[in-house]
Amino acid sequence: MTSLGPPDDTGRSLDPHLRRYAARAAGMTASEVRALFSVASRPEVVSLAGGMPNLTALPLDSLSTEIAGLVSGEGLVALQYGSAHGLPELRDQICEVMGLEEVHGHPDDVVVTVGSQMALDMVTRIFCDPGDVVLAEGPSYVGALGTFAAYQADVVHVGMDADGLVPDALREALAACERAGRRVKFLYTIPNFQNPAGVTLAVPRRAEILEICAAHRVLVVEDNPYGLLGFDGQTYPALRSMDADNVVYLGSFSKTFAAGLRVGWALAPHAVREKLMLAAESATLCPPTLNQMIVSRYLATHDWKGQIKSFQQTYRERRDAMLAALEQHFPPGCTWTVPAGGFFVWVTVPEGVDTKAMLPRAVTARVAYVSGTGFYADGLGSRQMRLSFCYPTPERITEGVRRLAAVLSDELDLARTFGPTSQRIGSGPQVPAPDTA
Amino acid sequence: MTSLGPPDDTGRSLDPHLRRYAARAAGMTASEVRALFSVASRPEVVSLAGGMPNLTALPLDSLSTEIAGLVSGEGLVALQYGSAHGLPELRDQICEVMGLEEVHGHPDDVVVTVGSQMALDMVTRIFCDPGDVVLAEGPSYVGALGTFAAYQADVVHVGMDADGLVPDALREALAACERAGRRVKFLYTIPNFQNPAGVTLAVPRRAEILEICAAHRVLVVEDNPYGLLGFDGQTYPALRSMDADNVVYLGSFSKTFAAGLRVGWALAPHAVREKLMLAAESATLCPPTLNQMIVSRYLATHDWKGQIKSFQQTYRERRDAMLAALEQHFPPGCTWTVPAGGFFVWVTVPEGVDTKAMLPRAVTARVAYVSGTGFYADGLGSRQMRLSFCYPTPERITEGVRRLAAVLSDELDLARTFGPTSQRIGSGPQVPAPDTA
Repeated sequence: MTSLGPPDDTGRSLDPHLRRYAARAAGMTASEVRALFSVASRPEVVSLAGGMPNLTALPLDSLSTEIAGLVSGEGLVALQYGSAHGLPELRDQICEVMGLEEVHGHPDDVVVTVGSQMALDMVTRIFCDPGDVVLAEGPSYVGALGTFAAYQADVVHVGMDADGLVPDALREALAACERAGRRVKFLYTIPNFQNPAGVTLAVPRRAEILEICAAHRVLVVEDNPYGLLGFDGQTYPALRSMDADNVVYLGSFSKTFAAGLRVGWALAPHAVREKLMLAAESATLCPPTLNQMIVSRYLATHDWKGQIKSFQQTYRERRDAMLAALEQHFPPGCTWTVPAGGFFVWVTVPEGVDTKAMLPRAVTARVAYVSGTGFYADGLGSRQMRLSFCYPTPERITEGVRRLAAVLSDELDLARTFGPTSQRIGSGPQVPAPDTA
Repeated sequence: MTSLGPPDDTGRSLDPHLRRYAARAAGMTASEVRALFSVASRPEVVSLAGGMPNLTALPLDSLSTEIAGLVSGEGLVALQYGSAHGLPELRDQICEVMGLEEVHGHPDDVVVTVGSQMALDMVTRIFCDPGDVVLAEGPSYVGALGTFAAYQADVVHVGMDADGLVPDALREALAACERAGRRVKFLYTIPNFQNPAGVTLAVPRRAEILEICAAHRVLVVEDNPYGLLGFDGQTYPALRSMDADNVVYLGSFSKTFAAGLRVGWALAPHAVREKLMLAAESATLCPPTLNQMIVSRYLATHDWKGQIKSFQQTYRERRDAMLAALEQHFPPGCTWTVPAGGFFVWVTVPEGVDTKAMLPRAVTARVAYVSGTGFYADGLGSRQMRLSFCYPTPERITEGVRRLAAVLSDELDLARTFGPTSQRIGSGPQVPAPDTA
């Protein structure tokens, strides 16, 4: 059988399928975060780049025993297809988990998904036509930007400050879209310990944000993977708890239990839930049954709230190590956010330094981060970077920040000598830079 | 917080989000198969409807021990995020599995997915714009039709006979699409023990089908979940084995091991593989790590080929029970296919009987099947039904067919008395009806 010749008439393409792809495939490019992973995973590199949760505190032996019991005792269910809706007992337990953030949902309105990433993909699938606008914080989660691009939705960023999304910026963004005749489908927001900025939406702003969206008839998609990881055990009322009809809530066990099981969910208004389930069925038929049973059994038999407390403590120690190292080592002119939970610190460097251009030099100095440009759909972020404190030990974090500070100082010296003069803008804890609007 | 009023100006919609959905959401409706599952799952009903594999032969105790070892020994990997590509050791083993059907792929070109359903979703995502045509056998897998609908691709069915897809019918369908100026993106085909028709593409036709597609510059998507389930252990060379450049091969462990783990894969030309991986990353970040390790460990430590032989024997006994019962009980004028592997028999009933209309009466008589209309995108199939022999015991199959025969005889009597006269078209084993073209 002879192979197909290149449909590309020029005959010069390396990919003979080039002209066959859907228009949406043009938006599918390797994220900066992903391109980094292969380099940053070398053991000598301190990776402040990834968002991998720390699992060392998990009770692997008792989990092993429980899972063995599931397979030997209920294997004919655990290894069989299930429904696209998800296991009823797990959906009950998910409602209990959401109750910790004041959400009172009905288990019928929960759809279990392959991680909350799939829930976000399904929400985008049912709501977004090509050219529709999604509003999102600037900066926003890189995986969400990838999903929106895959559905050819355009992201319009909305500015944040130390109290999260700025209501006036939201009003302005909506007004600008309306003036331009653009159809805004939803606001995508991570209200708690935001990825990547590390800030949290102040409680008084929550009702205001919801009112603005309701008045403009724009749905709210609330992504809340970190809400239970407040370092002092504090939680905030979810947006969904204040407006059950206009919020689709996305939750995940990836940060509070085990990312590798890929169990997440959406809680949606009833009519939307039906569409989500149909979309999910055509995407994967059903989420893995065994994984759902493992999460359900874990919630039923383990002190999962105690485990979350242990995670909070681990991450607080690491955040503290990172903030202390930043204070000690980072050159003047740098600013950063002070997260009260979650995984990330967002750093702004002085003018004259381009974090994307600096990255190869940082990796050469055996430290990795993610350049801020990965978190914007519009090219901003070259003076920002995301530093993750979730995975390395405090000692490694300190060493990584020290290495990064040295690279940054060299960059600043170069910029002062050869490039634009860096503007001294004060140092110390700061909110996301104004250019995040 | 007051809830959002209905954006639908009429104010009469039950779904206040109605006007917000993407155009593609209009194609998302509950499949006939799914609507059936809740009824057919009542224990008193013999379900010949579902496609659930039989798992009773699986070695649950030794699996339990292996999985326990994985979690206690390698839990920090098993419960952590992995890559969107899939575990390298599993991709190596997948290549070994595919070798049984003469496929020689490189592990780099394998992308592990959440069941092969997700692989199909990703292939459709990267190739199909709204309005593009997908060619598919008529009848075809209901889950594939749902995926194509979700991406607003139009399905054009191509006829089959007892030797599978008819090459001349494929030529005619391609020519008709070209005359109409329609863009055909790929041929979706299940060459072995097809779902739902139960027929297998004859080997001499395989090269011909590939040549036709290459000449028309149409990709081939080969879906092969049942290929190793030939009842006499026979296998056929995969289409992919004859044309590595123009075939995307979809594989699954759902029928040869455990559906509930949701582990499938795509083997794609190298350039396509990169796009598939990016699409998969934006859809779920990565497939569940634990599940991949379970499959990998199972393949490494168990006699998986012996296990497949045991599945072959189980399904052969059930197929035999179904065929014997059909011969014994079904009224004259009915015809059916004789599958040499897989899960399904495709039955054509005499004119005057509508299998969709008859279904409620069948369920009342405590037997369920899937009406043929679910397997066509164009409304055909009302004189066909799919009978699954994979899940019930031989005794239950015999009883189910007996019940169904009684319902069918009553329907035929009614049709003779009140409806159109049924045409006697001979009885006994037969190929899919001519109207499947």
